[in-house]
Amino acid sequence: MGRRSLLLLLLLLAFLTPGAATPVPPALRALSSLHLSTSFRSRPAVAMKYSIHYIQQKVDHFGFHTDKTFKQRYLIADKHWKEDGGSILFYTGNEGDIIWFCNNTGFMWDVAEELKAMLVFAEHRYYGESLPFGANSFKDSRHLNFLTTEQALADFATLIKYLKRTIPGARNQPVIALGGSYGGMLAAWFRMKYPHLVVGALASSAPIWQFEDMVPCGVFMKIVTTDFRKSGPNCSESIRRSWDAISRLTEKGTGLHWLSEALHLCTPLTESQDVQRLKDWISETWVNLAMVDYPYESNFLQPLPAWPIKVVCQYLKNPNVSDTWLLQNIFQALNVYYNYSGQARCLNISETATSSLGALGWSYQTCTEMVMPFCSNGIDDMFEPHSWNFKEFSDDCFKQWGVKPRPSWIPTMYGGKNISSHTNIIFSNGEIDPWSGGGVTKDITDTLLAIVIPEGAHHLDLRANNAFDPVTVLLARSLEVRHMKQWIKDFYASLRKMH
Amino acid sequence: MGRRSLLLLLLLLAFLTPGAATPVPPALRALSSLHLSTSFRSRPAVAMKYSIHYIQQKVDHFGFHTDKTFKQRYLIADKHWKEDGGSILFYTGNEGDIIWFCNNTGFMWDVAEELKAMLVFAEHRYYGESLPFGANSFKDSRHLNFLTTEQALADFATLIKYLKRTIPGARNQPVIALGGSYGGMLAAWFRMKYPHLVVGALASSAPIWQFEDMVPCGVFMKIVTTDFRKSGPNCSESIRRSWDAISRLTEKGTGLHWLSEALHLCTPLTESQDVQRLKDWISETWVNLAMVDYPYESNFLQPLPAWPIKVVCQYLKNPNVSDTWLLQNIFQALNVYYNYSGQARCLNISETATSSLGALGWSYQTCTEMVMPFCSNGIDDMFEPHSWNFKEFSDDCFKQWGVKPRPSWIPTMYGGKNISSHTNIIFSNGEIDPWSGGGVTKDITDTLLAIVIPEGAHHLDLRANNAFDPVTVLLARSLEVRHMKQWIKDFYASLRKMH
Repeated sequence: MGRRSLLLLLLLLAFLTPGAATPVPPALRALSSLHLSTSFRSRPAVAMKYSIHYIQQKVDHFGFHTDKTFKQRYLIADKHWKEDGGSILFYTGNEGDIIWFCNNTGFMWDVAEELKAMLVFAEHRYYGESLPFGANSFKDSRHLNFLTTEQALADFATLIKYLKRTIPGARNQPVIALGGSYGGMLAAWFRMKYPHLVVGALASSAPIWQFEDMVPCGVFMKIVTTDFRKSGPNCSESIRRSWDAISRLTEKGTGLHWLSEALHLCTPLTESQDVQRLKDWISETWVNLAMVDYPYESNFLQPLPAWPIKVVCQYLKNPNVSDTWLLQNIFQALNVYYNYSGQARCLNISETATSSLGALGWSYQTCTEMVMPFCSNGIDDMFEPHSWNFKEFSDDCFKQWGVKPRPSWIPTMYGGKNISSHTNIIFSNGEIDPWSGGGVTKDITDTLLAIVIPEGAHHLDLRANNAFDPVTVLLARSLEVRHMKQWIKDFYASLRKMH
Repeated sequence: MGRRSLLLLLLLLAFLTPGAATPVPPALRALSSLHLSTSFRSRPAVAMKYSIHYIQQKVDHFGFHTDKTFKQRYLIADKHWKEDGGSILFYTGNEGDIIWFCNNTGFMWDVAEELKAMLVFAEHRYYGESLPFGANSFKDSRHLNFLTTEQALADFATLIKYLKRTIPGARNQPVIALGGSYGGMLAAWFRMKYPHLVVGALASSAPIWQFEDMVPCGVFMKIVTTDFRKSGPNCSESIRRSWDAISRLTEKGTGLHWLSEALHLCTPLTESQDVQRLKDWISETWVNLAMVDYPYESNFLQPLPAWPIKVVCQYLKNPNVSDTWLLQNIFQALNVYYNYSGQARCLNISETATSSLGALGWSYQTCTEMVMPFCSNGIDDMFEPHSWNFKEFSDDCFKQWGVKPRPSWIPTMYGGKNISSHTNIIFSNGEIDPWSGGGVTKDITDTLLAIVIPEGAHHLDLRANNAFDPVTVLLARSLEVRHMKQWIKDFYASLRKMH
């Protein structure tokens, strides 16, 4: 797997978080909604009606040289909110447009009535409309200087205090933080750093240990591989063999042309460095599939069938075929991901490299605080070997953003594996989600809980209820609700004790 | 009490923390050491030998635009440290030279052997030698931008991780944070924000609630007044009447001259605005005395007798005397504070306004994060009425530093009164210390403990053992040690459980 691919992998967290609005080209988005209206079976039953609001936030919570402010966007849905005995569910927005996240976090909508909850969705600074310097926000490292997790958490804290002060009845209500993926990390960290503002956190698919050497750098690709191995006979082996097949095929003069035709690429491969780009793009496709391997039809980046890896693997049953045959099979497999709708005319290998606000911001974050090492060895996983080279990574970051990553900062700030003194955090992970490798999958204490969903992909539990949900995710959600109810109950009990 | 006085009051935390090196002019310092060598009875028995070290710290832990570093100074004393079953006592440096603090925190030296402890004293950025921009550090708000509690705590966190990585045997040892006054706040906040790095904190005389409206703004001056009321008959009443007496005396043409002579001022009062300066200076003297009302001879800003307020009050027994007589008594009282050594030739009313690094840094901090409201009403206290006027305060800050204070930030960041989810913090307060009014003086939970020392002035418990210590401070120290031992024991127990 090439260097570029690993860099891009770091983007995937943004890319595949449900509702990361940014990297979906308009054409695909149109496709998706078409698809939705005809056959999407997981459409939540709950109508998602919210109001849009803005709060003035300090651009710099941690310095006083500038007193500049910017408008942070947030959404409120209070249909089921009760002043008496109610609660506030606070979505700690991650790297994308908050409306997209709001529409893709059905779980909160599904439980609002039971928890008498007001739903609040807070947009993360530097994403969506919440741009501290407007169009200049990504101009250079000076303008990007305030894009950190600490500033984002400070925004959330300020917003919660503001809501409690200004919404009649909200003052003495318990707030629970919820988030998925990077937003799940933020939810957990928010409870750790601001326990006075949230009584607990649900951190879904939050790889808080995917930093430094807390988990082996190869765990991510290993889980992707396991997903493919278990989804069909010889499936991962076929993929493992495909890399050399590509190399052999493209060594010959006509190979590039043949492969471009066989894979129906929109832009033919012309030079040898295109081969690495192709391999990276294919790798990313498998990774993406592992994350969105949901039990029902869904539409993230692409409209996909239920259990898409199983469908993919139907084309990859035989690794012992000729190189050309193997690559034709690979095309069929890719086509499941890129053309489930049947409307794509060709496949575009630069599709994941789209540059949008969300991708820009996340790329900067991975180059500063969110330094997550990844590697593969081709033995424990089905990818080409690639070691984690921090020096190279750091140099690339400096070239792109003019900043140097600080890989040990997140563990210093948020405690790494030593977090047992905190309370009331649920870490939920899907076992087939590659991000679970960097997540908390065992209880740490009796109030720092791990919920593992065997059939779960990336934060499946945060998605809306669906008739095809496996029973394990239903159980997970019901456990989550039970704990949230307990936190709410404890809050009101201690409130009564104080008065 | 005048506006200037209230502003200066905010400096007193720095001013009177034992060992705040900055505001003591060289002449006085010489006096103090002379005094020490002849009659200082509280000299600690323990020899204070330490080594001096430096660590490169990021100027900005929370932003990546600058990657600049600076040298933070810290001290280590490891005479009694044991690798086997030992501990690390970490002094969270406050607003002054760390060597001065080190020499004035005898408690740590006294308990080092019992706890098999390495002592570490970390200097606070922008104080002592730890200047991020050298001589330019206080130049303007751009250079001062990195002087915040968050950056200071991040320095401490980075230092602890560095020590554990580099000192053989330190890795698996429990660290306990200790600090007094502002440093006590930092110790408590450090445990709250970085519980993975310190197993507990001893926060001595830490007024963590002296913010916003968490305590009445008048509580501070009320305690000062109580100290004087209880230290001698009519003492506070004499002071209360002195303000009008000063006003009446200085209304007459010759009044300024007479008063300058009567008070032995180095520089005669010449204009009417000097009267307010005089009152502020006298007020500050009473406040200072309340903080350092120790049971034995001591030498902070000034060499002082044991229980100095009692000595002062011997001159203030009769409030029902003429204005001139009353002011002559006031002079005798002031003379206890400013001339216990008997060597002062005159009294200098601009003495507390000395501008030094420590005072500069603290002035900036009170104008940004550390916004502590103070007021007096002349009824519950013995001072002239003065309300807390945030607007005026803010304008003054902007004039002086070009920054605007954010009074609600500290409560947002550190939880205000809602801190019950934290653990292992001891808040100790002396009942006669005016700062106890903003401190935690009642247990919050069974691991967030309050220790009140009835005869204690400002962090008496952190001072070295002394033959004249009241039994209550001995009890407090023994309780503190007992809890620290428990934290250490718990740490090792959980370490064993993990292996």
